[in-house]
Order: sequence, then C-alpha cells, then structure tokens
Amino acid sequence: MSDAQPRSLPLEGVRVLDLGQVYQVPYATFLMAQAGAEVIKVEPLEGEPVRRRFNVSRGAGIPLALLNSGKKAITLNLKSDKGKQMLLDLVKHVDVVVENFRPGVMDRLGLGVDVLRAQNPRVIVGSASGYGQTGPDRDQPAMDITIQAASGLMSATGFPDGPPVKAGPAVADFLSGTHLFGAVTTALYRRERTGEGATIDIAMLETAIPALASNLGAYFGPNPPAVDRTGNHHGGYAVAPYNVYALKDGYLAIICINDGHWQRLCAAMGKPELADDPDYRDMATRAKNMARTDGVVEAWTNALTRDEALALGQEFGFPCSPVKTIGEMLQDPHLWERGMFHKQDHPDIGDITVLASPLRFDGEKGKDPGFFPGLGEHNDEVFGEWLNLSKDEIKALRDDGVI
Amino acid sequence: MSDAQPRSLPLEGVRVLDLGQVYQVPYATFLMAQAGAEVIKVEPLEGEPVRRRFNVSRGAGIPLALLNSGKKAITLNLKSDKGKQMLLDLVKHVDVVVENFRPGVMDRLGLGVDVLRAQNPRVIVGSASGYGQTGPDRDQPAMDITIQAASGLMSATGFPDGPPVKAGPAVADFLSGTHLFGAVTTALYRRERTGEGATIDIAMLETAIPALASNLGAYFGPNPPAVDRTGNHHGGYAVAPYNVYALKDGYLAIICINDGHWQRLCAAMGKPELADDPDYRDMATRAKNMARTDGVVEAWTNALTRDEALALGQEFGFPCSPVKTIGEMLQDPHLWERGMFHKQDHPDIGDITVLASPLRFDGEKGKDPGFFPGLGEHNDEVFGEWLNLSKDEIKALRDDGVI
Repeated sequence: MSDAQPRSLPLEGVRVLDLGQVYQVPYATFLMAQAGAEVIKVEPLEGEPVRRRFNVSRGAGIPLALLNSGKKAITLNLKSDKGKQMLLDLVKHVDVVVENFRPGVMDRLGLGVDVLRAQNPRVIVGSASGYGQTGPDRDQPAMDITIQAASGLMSATGFPDGPPVKAGPAVADFLSGTHLFGAVTTALYRRERTGEGATIDIAMLETAIPALASNLGAYFGPNPPAVDRTGNHHGGYAVAPYNVYALKDGYLAIICINDGHWQRLCAAMGKPELADDPDYRDMATRAKNMARTDGVVEAWTNALTRDEALALGQEFGFPCSPVKTIGEMLQDPHLWERGMFHKQDHPDIGDITVLASPLRFDGEKGKDPGFFPGLGEHNDEVFGEWLNLSKDEIKALRDDGVI
Repeated sequence: MSDAQPRSLPLEGVRVLDLGQVYQVPYATFLMAQAGAEVIKVEPLEGEPVRRRFNVSRGAGIPLALLNSGKKAITLNLKSDKGKQMLLDLVKHVDVVVENFRPGVMDRLGLGVDVLRAQNPRVIVGSASGYGQTGPDRDQPAMDITIQAASGLMSATGFPDGPPVKAGPAVADFLSGTHLFGAVTTALYRRERTGEGATIDIAMLETAIPALASNLGAYFGPNPPAVDRTGNHHGGYAVAPYNVYALKDGYLAIICINDGHWQRLCAAMGKPELADDPDYRDMATRAKNMARTDGVVEAWTNALTRDEALALGQEFGFPCSPVKTIGEMLQDPHLWERGMFHKQDHPDIGDITVLASPLRFDGEKGKDPGFFPGLGEHNDEVFGEWLNLSKDEIKALRDDGVI
C-alpha cells in the first residue's frame, strides 16, 4: 500500500437519517459515518433497544458504543403528528434514509417510501428486515437468531452427531448490515450519474444464504450428506486437511487449499514422503481419505504447543491459526498496529475500547471512531440548525413529549 | 415497496477486472455483476482453486457456479512477461481492479498499486486478504477457517462445556467480500465527485470482529464469562428468552428483544400472568433468571409440533423460527416468490439452482444471474475487442501458454 497521502473522506458531504435499531442498520450507518458521512441517529424518547440494555448491565449496553460511535443522536416521537412532520422536514435535508422496522411499519406511520420521496425526490431509502419487504413471510418478526435458524446457517453449524448451534457472533445481522451499506453506496454512485433516487430492500434471510456456498455444493452433489453440519470440516467435505486439531495447550485450525500447502505441511510434519503418497497426493484423494488425513495431522499437533505450531506454520507456509479467545484477540499486536482498536475515556461511561471501521481507504490506518452520542445529545444542534427552531421551540417540543 | 418501474442498473457502465479466487473477492464481484457491472474474471490457465474442485466432485465445484454467474472469464498467465503486459493493457480499460492474493504477491509480480495506477490514474484498486496489507501478520496465509480461529469467532461458537466450533458457513469470507463490495462502490461514488481513484485494504480478520458485538460487551462488562461460547444464548447473556428450544419434532429459535415480545409469548403459552411476575417481568430480571426463563419456555415447546409453534408465533407476534435444514430452506416458498433461486440448464454442467443477488433495488425481484463462464470462455471477446488482437494473435498466445 504505497499511497498514504491524505484525501477527502469518501462519503464527505453525504447526510444520512438513520432510524435503525440494534445491530443491522446501526452497523451499516457506522460504516457510513466512519467513511465520512454525517449520520443522524433517530431514536424514540426512551432510546433504542440496545441503549436500554444499559439497564441490564454495562456490558449489555456496550454494543451501542461499538456501533454508534461518531454519529449524532436525536430523539423523535414518531407516533405523534408533530414528530412525523419533523421527520419529513428532516428528510428534505438528507441524501439517505435507512430503517429496519418490521415491513409495513413505516407505511402505517404515514412515512412510507412515496411520502419520503414526495419530500425529496432524490432520496435513497434503504430498508433492511428479516424477510424483506415482499413475499408471504414479510410480516414475520425476526432477529439474528431466528434468521440463523430459518436460513439453514444454524443447521449447518455444530457437529454431525450433536444439535444445531448458532454461530456465536450475530453474523446474520452483520452480513445484512454490510449488504445494506454496499447497496446504499451503490445507489449513491448511480445518483451521481443519473440523478435517480433508489429504494433498497435487504432481507437478512437472503444475505445469509450465499455464505452457505460450500454446503449448497454438497447438497447439490450426487450424495447429499444426511446431516448439514460438518463440525470443523469444510461444509462440503471437499477440502482436506480442513479442521481444528488438538494441541498440547489448545487448538489449531489448519487448511490446505491446494497441493502446495499440503506439501509444505508434510515437510513441516517431517514426513515429506506423504506429499507423493497415493493415499494423500491430491485433493480428491485426501477428501476421500479424510479421517486418515486428519489422523496423520492430529498425531503431529498433539505433540506440539501453540507457539511451536505457529512457528512451523510460518516457517513452512501453510494456512493455520491457533483458536484464540476473544480476550487474546483483543490483545493482538497486529490489530493494534493496524488501528482496529482505540481506547477512549467516554464522558458518560468512562474507559472503553472501541472499534475502527474495517474499511480502509488510501493506505490509512484505522482511526478513533469518536464518541458514541448520548440519547438526544444533538437535538439542539440538528433541530436548531436544520429546522431553524429556536431554543424555546425546542424546549416546548421536549415538554410536549415530541423529542 | 411501491416503485417497481424499471431503471438503469446501478453499476451499468462500470468495468471490473477481477483477479479474485475462492469466495471472498468472487462474492464481491458477483454483487457488482448483478448490480450491472461488466466483470472480467481473470484466472490462471489451470483455473482458480474452486474451479479445480470440479475434479473432486460436481458438488465441490458448484460454489464456482453460485459466485461467478454473470461474469466473463479470461485466462492469463501472470508469471509470463507477456501476460503481465496484457494485464496492464486491460487495466487501462477498467474502473476497478480487485484481488485477494497474499499481500506482496501483486508487487512481486510487478503489478503493484503504483504500477496499475501509472496505467490508469483513476483506477480503484481493491485488495482483500486475511490480515490486511500492513502489520506484523500481513504475510500469514489465511482462509475462512483460520480467520474464524484468529478472530475469536470460533471461540465464541459452540456450547460452554464443549470445544470451539466454526460457524458452518464461510462467514469470514462473505463478511469480508461484502465489505470489499461496499468499499469499492464507496470509492466509485467519491470518484464521481472528486475524480480521485482509491486504494482499498480489507482484512478478513477485521471484518469478522464487529459481529462479535454482544460478546465484546460481555467481555468488557464487570464479570467477563470464563468461556466465550454461550451455545444458543445471546453472546453476552443479556437477552432472555434467547435460545433454541426442543419441539416434539425439531427445534424452535425464540427471541424476545423487548418486554412486549415476552408479554405476547406469555399469552401464547397460556400464561399471561408471567408477564407481570416479578421473576420475569423485565429484561434485566429475565436475564438474571435465564435458566428458569428457559425452563418455562421449553416446558411449553416440548409439547408442540413445529407447525403448531409457528402458528402460535404468527398469531401472537413474537420472533421465532423453526431450525430449517438447508434442504428445507431451498424449498421455502417465500424465497422462491422473492426470486432468490433460479433453475438453470447450464451448457457445461446441466441442471443447477443458482442464487440471485441479495441486493434488491427499486422494487425488483431477484433475477436469474446468468450462466457462470467456462474457463477462458471470453478470451476471444475480451482480448479481441479490448486489446484489438486478431484471431491469429490470440491463437499464438494460446500456443505460447500466455492465455
């Protein structure tokens, strides 16, 4: 990466009205904010669900900090006529509106796409939901865990002789949030070219399915597996070695994506002759002899410590990694060096470690994302500057339960 | 979604040179192709690794079809001087170059960012890798499973008393591919505004970390859990009910994200009095009494079939879903209605079911993504039209092992 010269932030000048809640849309707008957009987070007067989790514990509320850093926050009672009108007034000032209410809620509030577009013909309206804005299941309430269940993702996670397990992280939320981000920036690009606004429909269910590519391959093959889950093996049992192997002091993930990796692993194991052995020499044969291939590798890892295994992986050059705990990952010098984490002393909650955006442009390191905003922290600024309301008018709105 | 009027495809006119392999970059360019970009997939003469998996089995190769539909494919020997020169000539014709070789490979080939930009000052160069283009671990080879291990994702998946498990799908590959897509479209937007090209650095490791938001919250809380994995519970034990419960004939995922959901679940269970019970009435209390909360719910699900549970979920309105197998998901009428799947009779491999893009613009349904290209299928077209090579010149390149 040779060009670290500072440039304009890519989304500088873009204004986003963010009605999002929990993880899906807030992550999309976190990426926008970190890329330079001005994001206004609109919350009900009691705060969005994750903000309310500070009532459960500090840790339960921390995701609010991680996903909303660098945004501005306003409150607005969208069930009041005045609140709706103020939202419509704000829409005139923005490029993008995003929301992840249940499909139909915006329409029932009188804030459907046509109403928003009547305020601002160029606006890009991005909706994300569990099942999408159309189809027989569109009205089903959904969250990450239910979509992991409905998409086959959960059926494909865990060991073949055990129950289905969800992926620990909220991967359906984050996959769909990232898709929404990409769809919005795609629409922004088109708008620059053609002047057209856009309506975007992201279904969490659909964004989870492509990630099942290996599993879908197995399903479409001549002998679909009886159970979808393959433990730590390749989802289609098509690659070997591909597994997590026990070390003296932990676990090591190893994958050989081609015969070159396998040859280097054989050299690392001190058994270079296996590279030419007819039982192991090519991917098809190793995949057929998967249990034996795993047995050879694990006999070797069983005698190694993590440090020894990692050193051999680096010396011989095949993909491997110890299974790190979250605590270990958070201390990874590589991630700190790249600027992925930043320590903050936040005015409301004190010392926290927050995340940079994983989108890195123009050779720059990850940067401090800024503080997350308090509930309604930017009411005066946004309502004052955008809507030209006086301090007295803003106070009256507060007294009336509108903001 | 009220506007289904046809518009220009959002990335119409964008040309992409795709050096990607396996899942990460091919998924990013699949999204680009389906949004209207012209994507030229560049492969070595023996094909990219997933194409070679057709040698293992038909099913092992199917992911190539799923992720490369609608692209054009050329072959190019980048280790030959002539092949390199031809790549540089192609770069003059495109808006975007994307690649996911190991960091340093493009430089060693003499195809680093500066060289590409010298050909085309406006080009957007997007690189995706396991650990990123900088930092102490940048040279580590990496694939989805090793990044699941290194990111904490695997440590956070599985049951607390069991071993770490990978998420079945290749979520690290697809999260990073989707981030790359969004970064490229963001850079395209900026280029329209300012004329600037861009250099993009996406690290699979970093794109996996935000999805751990719940788990990170627990880690930063006053009592970090001894083990990162929480089975099918919320990653921070902050939400209850949040689990997968045994039915008479399968499993049901249920989540109550707020007290309203819990009240409706209590009504569905025929126990409306639990909504006000001091042991369960708010999220903090239910999270504290998680085992008892789960016990109440599972006593109810144990006596239900899938169909009965789903009907009650719909009637009372709380988020739930049966755990579907991949086979069941592939028959979901909702997904077919929305156009997520398309049957094709492919000229090379016969009947297959392929995926539409999950990005839906302007009220349109998911569309047939087109056929996936054969190895080098578009050599004549691309080298002929873009580089003005004659049929004889193309034949000579083929004979010389350049294409």
